[in-house]
Amino acid sequence: MRAEIVSIGDELLKGQRVNTNAAFIAGALSGIGVPVGRIVSCSDLEPEMVSVLTESLERVELVIVTGGLGPTRDDRTRNAVQKLLQRGLELSEDAYENLVDRMKLRGLEISASLRDQAMVIEGSHVIPNTKGTAAGMIIRCSERFDHHYLVLMPGVPSEMEAMMELTVLPYFAALSSTVILHTPVKTIGIGESTMAEMIVDIEDRLPEGTTLAYLPHAAGVNLMISTIGVRPDEVDRDNCSVVDAIVQKAGKFIFATCDVTLEETIGRMLSEKGMTVAVAESCTGGLVASRLTDVAGSSSYFLQGFVTYSNQAKQKTLGVQKELIESFGAVSEEVARAMAGGCLAKSGADIAVATTGIAGPSGGSPEKPVGMVCLAIAQKLSGRAHSKTLFMQGDRERNKCRFSEAALRELWECLRVA
Amino acid sequence: MRAEIVSIGDELLKGQRVNTNAAFIAGALSGIGVPVGRIVSCSDLEPEMVSVLTESLERVELVIVTGGLGPTRDDRTRNAVQKLLQRGLELSEDAYENLVDRMKLRGLEISASLRDQAMVIEGSHVIPNTKGTAAGMIIRCSERFDHHYLVLMPGVPSEMEAMMELTVLPYFAALSSTVILHTPVKTIGIGESTMAEMIVDIEDRLPEGTTLAYLPHAAGVNLMISTIGVRPDEVDRDNCSVVDAIVQKAGKFIFATCDVTLEETIGRMLSEKGMTVAVAESCTGGLVASRLTDVAGSSSYFLQGFVTYSNQAKQKTLGVQKELIESFGAVSEEVARAMAGGCLAKSGADIAVATTGIAGPSGGSPEKPVGMVCLAIAQKLSGRAHSKTLFMQGDRERNKCRFSEAALRELWECLRVA
Repeated sequence: MRAEIVSIGDELLKGQRVNTNAAFIAGALSGIGVPVGRIVSCSDLEPEMVSVLTESLERVELVIVTGGLGPTRDDRTRNAVQKLLQRGLELSEDAYENLVDRMKLRGLEISASLRDQAMVIEGSHVIPNTKGTAAGMIIRCSERFDHHYLVLMPGVPSEMEAMMELTVLPYFAALSSTVILHTPVKTIGIGESTMAEMIVDIEDRLPEGTTLAYLPHAAGVNLMISTIGVRPDEVDRDNCSVVDAIVQKAGKFIFATCDVTLEETIGRMLSEKGMTVAVAESCTGGLVASRLTDVAGSSSYFLQGFVTYSNQAKQKTLGVQKELIESFGAVSEEVARAMAGGCLAKSGADIAVATTGIAGPSGGSPEKPVGMVCLAIAQKLSGRAHSKTLFMQGDRERNKCRFSEAALRELWECLRVA
Repeated sequence: MRAEIVSIGDELLKGQRVNTNAAFIAGALSGIGVPVGRIVSCSDLEPEMVSVLTESLERVELVIVTGGLGPTRDDRTRNAVQKLLQRGLELSEDAYENLVDRMKLRGLEISASLRDQAMVIEGSHVIPNTKGTAAGMIIRCSERFDHHYLVLMPGVPSEMEAMMELTVLPYFAALSSTVILHTPVKTIGIGESTMAEMIVDIEDRLPEGTTLAYLPHAAGVNLMISTIGVRPDEVDRDNCSVVDAIVQKAGKFIFATCDVTLEETIGRMLSEKGMTVAVAESCTGGLVASRLTDVAGSSSYFLQGFVTYSNQAKQKTLGVQKELIESFGAVSEEVARAMAGGCLAKSGADIAVATTGIAGPSGGSPEKPVGMVCLAIAQKLSGRAHSKTLFMQGDRERNKCRFSEAALRELWECLRVA
């Protein structure tokens, strides 16, 4: 079984919204062994919807549609599908009860128009909406479309995601016969082309059914090793062999071969070692602290962060000496080390990381250009701080992101050898 | 002239990457009056690319393709287009020089394979790549495709964005005859359905050619008023009249009618009033500070942030009294006010905002559930702090985002009346 995804909505075509729904659905379908052939975004005008859906239903066995199912007037998907399949509407008692329950819960009146929202395409398998009002539908098409499946869901991500997980995935997993296994290989501190050179031998000899994709991101590249097949044990074996080979070649740049973030990896290392961390940030403005505390349970190892943006704050809060700033400048390894040291002392943490740099767009000079960042790590055990300077190229937002990534990388490197 | 966007790459179809490129291109094309009819993501297999490009080129005058132009072997777009248009390759001297320059700058060898990267489809208008190596192309197709335009760009967002802005947009703006005007109406503290009820009269009487879209986001809803027409003055007049009417009805929830963020708006207000700000964060973990410092020039008003995650840090760094935490708990308005007051005193800022709450997934109780946040603002001038408690529903990441949005909203409200 192959699938296509159709995303309805003018806001997608105007660039006012990024199509995260399609990525979610595609990832979820991959997980149950249903490959996605195309993703199409089109307008909510009826003739256009009819034409896009016709093409997709002629090409593949499963077409998943999101958007245009809500209560407002720009929601026309149900009408288009009625026309396409030449079917009427029928009341879904379950969907109607769900609506009534939701209204009562919110203390709202049960209006006559509520029944309209619970009307579904004749012969649908109704997908309950546990997060909102509009019901979803799984529709088996007639002979004209070779009995292919059409799935309709609202475009609100939380509603659609719950429908996928609770109803759509179990439904189609039961019908699918192929197995797909994706293993991410997450790296840091290496670029796409260097990585490609490093693993060229492996790429030359991929087992049949296995592919290797490069996924560059703001601060490096991740890999995705995908294997498709019929027998789970063979798929597993082929996938593992490639992942293992890559880890052997490029292990020192790899922080995970599963779906975890760098900050989660760091959190796990800190917990395992029973260590606590604190951060002192200038140019990253709180982003390093925010990323570390994105991890559930981070309060057990993250003690404190200092966002010392002004020179005065660096002196008063972290005890950085005025003379140091005057001699070397606020953006210097000397000041970074003093910030890390002060942060360690003030917080009582076992390890502290500090950032000071120039995110831009202004504030740069020939000696200290926009994109320059000084990083320092101080450790209680050794009583010493080490530092380094890096240069990035990007706008303010990208620089902040890369600075924070570099700071987390330093922390990770340090914890690996600690 | 109408356009379609084709995004090449298996990572899109596997859900490993969200298609942000298409949204950027669609938004940019809208801005020059070129509406986008469809966005199609497809695999990088040659027959599939040829078939998707054929369909698009038959439908519309301009087809913009991203992806598959890099140096690695899964980059097959150029080959597919050669086959589709039955054209050969030629060396672009400009692209070659750019490559050589970039290699020299990075101290790398000039390899023989570099010439291959500078080969473009015969008869292309070359799009210089100011951020990377692969050259882009604007290709005028032959009669078979009615002399429609095909644009090829790499999939790396920064490279593609620079190409759009420097070359592609000016090129096609000159060919386009319709005018599109989009005005965002940015709100905070109001949901989609409440907003829809509030402006139902306006939506009922939109001028012809004007549409109104709701763009819900993590912490509320934005509106986009779009007007399409031929005469710039009429487009401008119709668009303005709708925006003005919405501002009259819902002004107190609107922080901007242009493309600025809430943090930029707050930054402008602080600068205008000559005020400085500091933040004390517990549950938001640095996110409020990071958002405030996302704004270029924020160092002129943002003094300092304290991420006091542990109770000890709240006491030691912000001077929150131990008894207060013991009596009311760390998540309480009392502690939030003490944090804001301590932050004000320690930083010397004119206004301070504090957050303490439970982001989850654990740490909640029946009295203080996950999603609860206490916010406080302290002002130097009044010498007083005020506070409030809010309840959100979401996972950890979403709660952090909403907490930070609520804190920024408090700051904005305060600055409006200050």
